Amino acid sequence: MKAEILTIGDEVLRGEIVDSNKALIASRLLQLDVECHYQASVRDDPADMRDAFERGISRSDLLLVSGGLGPTRDDRTTETLAEALGRPLEFDEGSFEAMRAFFARVGREMNETNRKQALFPSGAEILANPVGTAPGFLLEERGTIVVCMPGVPRELSLMMDEQVLPRVEARLEKGEGVSRVRARMLRTFGIGESSLEGELADIAQDGEAELAFRTSFPDNFLRVVARGASISEADTRIDAVAAKIRARIGDLVYGEGEETLEAVVGGLLGAAGRTVAVAESCTGGTIAQKLTDNPGSSVYFLGGMVAYSNSAKQALLGVSEETLVRHGAVSEPVVSAMASGVRARFGADIGIATTGISGPGGGSETKPVGLVYIGISWGAGIASSRILANSGEVDAGIRVSPGESGGAGGEGGSAAGHFIFPLDRARHRTLTAQVALDWIRRLMTDTELVGPSLMRRGGGSAPAGLPSSGTKTGSS
Amino acid sequence: MKAEILTIGDEVLRGEIVDSNKALIASRLLQLDVECHYQASVRDDPADMRDAFERGISRSDLLLVSGGLGPTRDDRTTETLAEALGRPLEFDEGSFEAMRAFFARVGREMNETNRKQALFPSGAEILANPVGTAPGFLLEERGTIVVCMPGVPRELSLMMDEQVLPRVEARLEKGEGVSRVRARMLRTFGIGESSLEGELADIAQDGEAELAFRTSFPDNFLRVVARGASISEADTRIDAVAAKIRARIGDLVYGEGEETLEAVVGGLLGAAGRTVAVAESCTGGTIAQKLTDNPGSSVYFLGGMVAYSNSAKQALLGVSEETLVRHGAVSEPVVSAMASGVRARFGADIGIATTGISGPGGGSETKPVGLVYIGISWGAGIASSRILANSGEVDAGIRVSPGESGGAGGEGGSAAGHFIFPLDRARHRTLTAQVALDWIRRLMTDTELVGPSLMRRGGGSAPAGLPSSGTKTGSS
Repeated sequence: MKAEILTIGDEVLRGEIVDSNKALIASRLLQLDVECHYQASVRDDPADMRDAFERGISRSDLLLVSGGLGPTRDDRTTETLAEALGRPLEFDEGSFEAMRAFFARVGREMNETNRKQALFPSGAEILANPVGTAPGFLLEERGTIVVCMPGVPRELSLMMDEQVLPRVEARLEKGEGVSRVRARMLRTFGIGESSLEGELADIAQDGEAELAFRTSFPDNFLRVVARGASISEADTRIDAVAAKIRARIGDLVYGEGEETLEAVVGGLLGAAGRTVAVAESCTGGTIAQKLTDNPGSSVYFLGGMVAYSNSAKQALLGVSEETLVRHGAVSEPVVSAMASGVRARFGADIGIATTGISGPGGGSETKPVGLVYIGISWGAGIASSRILANSGEVDAGIRVSPGESGGAGGEGGSAAGHFIFPLDRARHRTLTAQVALDWIRRLMTDTELVGPSLMRRGGGSAPAGLPSSGTKTGSS
Repeated sequence: MKAEILTIGDEVLRGEIVDSNKALIASRLLQLDVECHYQASVRDDPADMRDAFERGISRSDLLLVSGGLGPTRDDRTTETLAEALGRPLEFDEGSFEAMRAFFARVGREMNETNRKQALFPSGAEILANPVGTAPGFLLEERGTIVVCMPGVPRELSLMMDEQVLPRVEARLEKGEGVSRVRARMLRTFGIGESSLEGELADIAQDGEAELAFRTSFPDNFLRVVARGASISEADTRIDAVAAKIRARIGDLVYGEGEETLEAVVGGLLGAAGRTVAVAESCTGGTIAQKLTDNPGSSVYFLGGMVAYSNSAKQALLGVSEETLVRHGAVSEPVVSAMASGVRARFGADIGIATTGISGPGGGSETKPVGLVYIGISWGAGIASSRILANSGEVDAGIRVSPGESGGAGGEGGSAAGHFIFPLDRARHRTLTAQVALDWIRRLMTDTELVGPSLMRRGGGSAPAGLPSSGTKTGSS
């Protein structure tokens, strides 16, 4: 099945908005193993629209259209398509009633202009829109399925999932000897794209599933696609391959699908009843912001300090003046003192801290732009026997220490490490925050704290987004 | 001049990346008043690419292509275009040398595969790429200008500005009676799109310039386009219209072009030698993160606290237990205490604070989800005679108070207000942070602190992104 996506709207053509709808639709289609061959966008211009409809119907099996279903004069998708196909418009009472109910629910007045949103080309199947006013519709023309959907991403997304994909899947199943497809997205952090590819080369080659790699800074995503004569066969296959991958690269996989690292960390902390506090210098609030992006984060997030100045590090986090003077603000002793200081101030189970030089200014010969220290401190009872196994050793720039009473993890402990990330300011902050969040995840799952050496293992390539000939962050 | 944009790459067609390059190119073209009529994307497939080239050349005057200029086997733009146009490929020694110098500069090894990036279709004009390996090129075919550029946004952006736009402008100027165009983008915050349109209706109608409105949550952007027989005529016109707009809506315009609100606030603080400290509850670090996004922010940003829990508000910010118990954490007395507390703790000139219910949980009948309090506190010498004019009065939910010694601004003062933003969690946090930053801007420019009532002035529509029949945040 050859798919084509068409989005309609002056605001897209003028570049006033970045049109994310095409990517939204294309990635959903991939779940059914349907590939998108063409993407096009045209203005709210009937002649251009007719032309695009005609071309799509003649060259594709599935034409997915988004935009132009609103109530205003500029919204002309339905009428233009009906005219192009020589189909009269028909009024649908049920859709009009659903629209009226929608307006009543959100406490707004329905306008007479909304009436046109209940008109559909003859022969179209109507696709309900429970979260907006504009219903979509589907029709078949010369063997091509044409689907028209609203342009509001939230409405489009729901309509794709609930209405369009099941119908496309049903068509696919009518085909002879069609295989069923299941896809799963594994989210990894800490390993470069080409290293990931190298580590999993044999799994990719054994034919059980297809692996596709993609950088989404600072993560790398791994898409696993398996086919089978039945869905359960495809499912069994994908489970087996995913298990093999996890056995191989284990703790580098932090989540699946839409799970962000901060959501995973929040889930782990919440489930274990543990709390965290954050002391940030160079990340300037990024870690706190990410952790509190999660609804209900007040259960485990006690608070954060953004301590940019030395005096703030002293007064608020208890870093001693001597330590600051002797080692400088960007140093291991300071980040360690920040992590334990913030943990003590908030009475949290875990304290995490960052201090570094995100640039572009502020570097020196011994402390270049890009240098960053990350520290973590944890209290009694947080499992860490594995983490403390290399206690006292400096491994890959990370020094792990047992707690005050020297127990094997039962009394808590701390770790600190340094990295040089040769990135611009924004990406330096993002990557630093991600390593810090990943350390909390590793602490909670009792896996080794890792840094750049592991990030570079395998093919010797850099982590996602670091300059490396193997890293592709965009097409060139 | 009819322009068309074509982007090339499997990753775009699969929806693995949201292709922002088309919007980047289109918005740059608008600076020259050139409208984009078509946008298309195809895979790294020679047949599809040939087809797209052919169509673009036959229907458009300017075809801007991005992607597929890299060194790998998948990058086929140059060879495919050369073949489609029947032009041989020619090796350019100068480009190859520039590439070698680029690799030496970034300390990387040049690969033999990079050689193909120095091949260009016969008759092409080469466009240098000072920030990457792939040069672009321009050629003319059957009256259509075809420009090929790299897909890496940073490289594309620079090539558009420095190489492509001047050449397009030069072609435009060859035309008979062509007018010169100047465009300027004014960034506004605090007024809804339809209110903005209403306020400026007469200016839009007097024909001196065209005004276009666009919502970019939580801001509204206003694009002013003026034409003239000469550039200086267009410039004079645009200056006059911009002055008229500023006279009308004055302090609602916070910046121009690419200036973010946090950059404007940072600039004001830096220029005045003033410092700020932030106490955040519901925004969870967003304000601190934005302020520290600016390079060199350590000059004016002393630090921040993310005080999610009551105990943190007490211990770190000095909010009294009595105040918390009596009024609740989401209240005007608490936000005021947070703002003055954080200012005192960090010894800053200005303290800013937020506390609210971003949702989805945590609301009650008297304190619904969406309720938020914002507080600001400032020290002696920060001009605010205008701000203190309504001292003691509660205007539009904002209460302004003079400092301890009761002077007319000379001794500092404070203000606090509450808003109900019926938005999802992420947008609630974003809008709250923007109001807080805007208050700092207003304090530094001695303009009235405003809230929702002003945001709703004019046509009675809601600010950008708030539900309102007049607000359009996407096409439907």
